[in-house]
Amino acid sequence: MRDLAGRPDLCAINTATLGFQVPIGETIEAIARHGFGGISPWRREIESGDVAAIARQIRDAGLKVASYCRSTFIPAATPAQFRANVDDNRRAIRDAAILGAPCFVMVVGGLAEGSKDLALARVQVEEATAELLKFGREMGVRISLEPLHPVYAADRSCLNTMAQVSGICDRLDPEASDDPWLGQCLDVYHVWWDPDLERQIARAGRRIHCFHVCDWRLPSRDPLNDRAMMGDGVIDIRAIRGMVEQAGYRGFVEVEIFSELDWWCRPIDEILSTCKTRFATAC
Amino acid sequence: MRDLAGRPDLCAINTATLGFQVPIGETIEAIARHGFGGISPWRREIESGDVAAIARQIRDAGLKVASYCRSTFIPAATPAQFRANVDDNRRAIRDAAILGAPCFVMVVGGLAEGSKDLALARVQVEEATAELLKFGREMGVRISLEPLHPVYAADRSCLNTMAQVSGICDRLDPEASDDPWLGQCLDVYHVWWDPDLERQIARAGRRIHCFHVCDWRLPSRDPLNDRAMMGDGVIDIRAIRGMVEQAGYRGFVEVEIFSELDWWCRPIDEILSTCKTRFATAC
Repeated sequence: MRDLAGRPDLCAINTATLGFQVPIGETIEAIARHGFGGISPWRREIESGDVAAIARQIRDAGLKVASYCRSTFIPAATPAQFRANVDDNRRAIRDAAILGAPCFVMVVGGLAEGSKDLALARVQVEEATAELLKFGREMGVRISLEPLHPVYAADRSCLNTMAQVSGICDRLDPEASDDPWLGQCLDVYHVWWDPDLERQIARAGRRIHCFHVCDWRLPSRDPLNDRAMMGDGVIDIRAIRGMVEQAGYRGFVEVEIFSELDWWCRPIDEILSTCKTRFATAC
Repeated sequence: MRDLAGRPDLCAINTATLGFQVPIGETIEAIARHGFGGISPWRREIESGDVAAIARQIRDAGLKVASYCRSTFIPAATPAQFRANVDDNRRAIRDAAILGAPCFVMVVGGLAEGSKDLALARVQVEEATAELLKFGREMGVRISLEPLHPVYAADRSCLNTMAQVSGICDRLDPEASDDPWLGQCLDVYHVWWDPDLERQIARAGRRIHCFHVCDWRLPSRDPLNDRAMMGDGVIDIRAIRGMVEQAGYRGFVEVEIFSELDWWCRPIDEILSTCKTRFATAC
């Protein structure tokens, strides 16, 4: 297992962690100043700006793009809406390529508006993924499906376990290379409860494109935006990182914390210095 | 699939649905008056009273006990606390026998106080279940493990999928009869998201001791106590009932709704008449 002490270069900061308090330019400079190695920007920060210029600023700051967040939700009540959702993601993948992002993170969406048909949502997601995988290969961007905690099945993601995502990967990309075009984004917050976790991490192996950390606060005041700083919750993050590295993962440990009630209210330098400490002591 | 129209005798009311607004005696009379067939009382209503007298009142009202809710949480930081938790459940199983409850519902608890070791919690639960299964057989009470939604893994239940519970059942009670002593309590709220649901229901088969219904409100204001009346959420309850009956289930459809912000604020007669209507139209 890698020793993370004194190695913030192995850590990437997902910009959502900073609560989008400052423009992307300031965010890039701050993340670099604190010595982190990677950044994962969000589309809201990129699509309103000059993508190539932002990509250049990230490179010039000495940072690598860890991933690009995230997909437009897929499931739709009409074929036209489904098409629009997929096309939106094609545009985002094009931006990911300009950014030099190795992968595009897909948070796929839950039930279509007014629907109770979770199986249908899952079929739509698989169909869209097949198309986006093909486009991603053309653009040199890997597609990373993120299984989300089952608490989001209705409204944010109908992909809810690593096993489910591995099934999709096996069907759509059966001949995986050492660096597969289709894989998963593993976030401890979403998978820590899974009784089958160790086996599923081993099964996913090199399909694990990204490894996200934060913590599960107890009690949780909100399943979406009350995530904790690593070490402040009940997840045994180090144990999960051990499994992930055992499976061959050597990429960034990426900090992604949605914390409307706590961290997002703090200055970004305080957030970043705490991330740096906890990355070394609690991951 | 059974036709539920005009058959409230196939419906059981879990008394938590009424928010414990009135004493158990009144609850029994109201449930019987509305024509339901079953009742599932909670320990808080039973342990402070005369168990045998309550059992008699339930029988005299023409109701059957569907199940007895629920276990003391198992995982513990010390052997003494573990022992106390198991013993508490033995006492409850004795009461279940006096009530004539066919099964004792086990909501097993999450992490022990101060622990991050979910695997250990699960080992403790399996050990306790083995002992309680043995005691349940002596007392004529089946043990029904309830997998809870993964959102509760930390604080309410480290059993989070039907597959996980089936694994425990296979290990502890390998020679299941047509009416197995160890089984599961399936609540649509906890399992509706599971990508493997249909297969796991078929696998559980006659191990499905109870079938609970309510609905998943969108947006949910609180994962614990903001459950919806059947038909007011996004769960395709009828589809799940179809799978459960296909697997051989012929017991009660039991209504259990935790709704602090809505139903628990209403008069119990309004709750019960709505349950009766929705049981026939939305299950």
